[in-house]
Amino acid sequence: VSLRRPIRFEEVDAAGIVFFPRILGYCHEAMEDFFAPLEGGYARLILERKIGLPAVHLDVDFTAPLRYGDTIDIRTTVDRLGRTSASLRYAVANAASGVIAATIVHVVVATDLVRLRPIEWPADLRAVLESAPTP
Amino acid sequence: VSLRRPIRFEEVDAAGIVFFPRILGYCHEAMEDFFAPLEGGYARLILERKIGLPAVHLDVDFTAPLRYGDTIDIRTTVDRLGRTSASLRYAVANAASGVIAATIVHVVVATDLVRLRPIEWPADLRAVLESAPTP
Amino acid sequence: VSLRRPIRFEEVDAAGIVFFPRILGYCHEAMEDFFAPLEGGYARLILERKIGLPAVHLDVDFTAPLRYGDTIDIRTTVDRLGRTSASLRYAVANAASGVIAATIVHVVVATDLVRLRPIEWPADLRAVLESAPTP
Amino acid sequence: VSLRRPIRFEEVDAAGIVFFPRILGYCHEAMEDFFAPLEGGYARLILERKIGLPAVHLDVDFTAPLRYGDTIDIRTTVDRLGRTSASLRYAVANAASGVIAATIVHVVVATDLVRLRPIEWPADLRAVLESAPTP
Repeated sequence: VSLRRPIRFEEVDAAGIVFFPRILGYCHEAMEDFFAPLEGGYARLILERKIGLPAVHLDVDFTAPLRYGDTIDIRTTVDRLGRTSASLRYAVANAASGVIAATIVHVVVATDLVRLRPIEWPADLRAVLESAPTP
Repeated sequence: VSLRRPIRFEEVDAAGIVFFPRILGYCHEAMEDFFAPLEGGYARLILERKIGLPAVHLDVDFTAPLRYGDTIDIRTTVDRLGRTSASLRYAVANAASGVIAATIVHVVVATDLVRLRPIEWPADLRAVLESAPTP
Repeated sequence: VSLRRPIRFEEVDAAGIVFFPRILGYCHEAMEDFFAPLEGGYARLILERKIGLPAVHLDVDFTAPLRYGDTIDIRTTVDRLGRTSASLRYAVANAASGVIAATIVHVVVATDLVRLRPIEWPADLRAVLESAPTP
Repeated sequence: VSLRRPIRFEEVDAAGIVFFPRILGYCHEAMEDFFAPLEGGYARLILERKIGLPAVHLDVDFTAPLRYGDTIDIRTTVDRLGRTSASLRYAVANAASGVIAATIVHVVVATDLVRLRPIEWPADLRAVLESAPTP
């Protein structure tokens, strides 16, 4: 599962490289794309079903800088699928060179956004997670 | 009425100057500060009273670049106060030199966020707007 | 000339609609796409040729709110082309309904980023600007 | 070492809680404040001395959501100080309740931004790091 996207003009910082929190934002975009097979996509999940996937843990290695003008490819896989949580893994590569810029483990919990309580994975989300390639 | 704030590391773009849409974000911060005298501030207005102030018009002149390391001062005034709308004006100055970096006219409409319809200014918001200096 | 893009999860604000400065960011994306015919695109213009297009003026009308889950289309045209400046116009439409969410006039100045001085339009940039549809 | 700051209007996402990558941005602000004792602060380090502190690793636990209207306190400490790297730790607390919203370990490498190569800690940066409380 993959997202391709250019680095944008305002995503670099005063040091001229991509501001590292933005790379987590790119992963969130990849996660939205990952759940696109849901009816109405991730937007309907959040806005109508009031179910979200807040992050509870991140483990990130940054291995090469990214710059304006670069394009990235993100490969999304599932490391672990629990009853209410899942561990997603993103490999962020520089599309031109194939060099890995960052590897992210992102643990999310299926959450009722009204009561902010964990819920068991709804069947359609579980199906998307199970259909993902493992790393 | 004034907001003082440093330019942050990630607010510049690949050209090394503040990305111009961010300057509108600074004005929004100044507006939040401007409405701080409301009970619970701007946050309670939005989250509990479900009243917001969406922008309907902007008129902006950028007159000097801003860089990382600069600090800005924003002076907020009210140009015009109508039944459901108001015209705010922000002068964004480089705090060290006093040079004006941008001047923004920002027309907002008092809005019921549930029905997204204009409403007459509630008395407490009108009082804050009337107490502001004129330019 | 057009950019199509979804509204992203983090682009709305506490009122649940797109934070207005982000719409200016979308226009900047559309401008980057507009200049894609340049060799190396807008990134090479900035990073290697050290030429940028800082905004000197904005005139914006917001006419309908945008929400997470919406997709926008931006049509970019050129209102006026001067010796060192140009006036770009963006019509931002909700792709599903065709409703115009915002209309932006964006005046930019061709600028030597090293000395921060206006320059006459280089021939290749002028060619891109001249090839654009007028509104 | 501490940073206090309100959550801003545009820092929440479509689920109504702070978008998790922004919390890393808050930590970067705390780091800038941490290095404020340097002559010219972090800005001069980046822009004139061309030395930066890119992240190479993050380990983050999110333990409570943050919302618009909340204020946070960040306590910054140093876990480990090496020859060219350091491990900073940030505890992000909800200022009103004292509840910890996130704990972040952030490993940075002192870097020559021109050649993008690690360097030994300059004496003044090492002095700031050594003067920090340990967790």
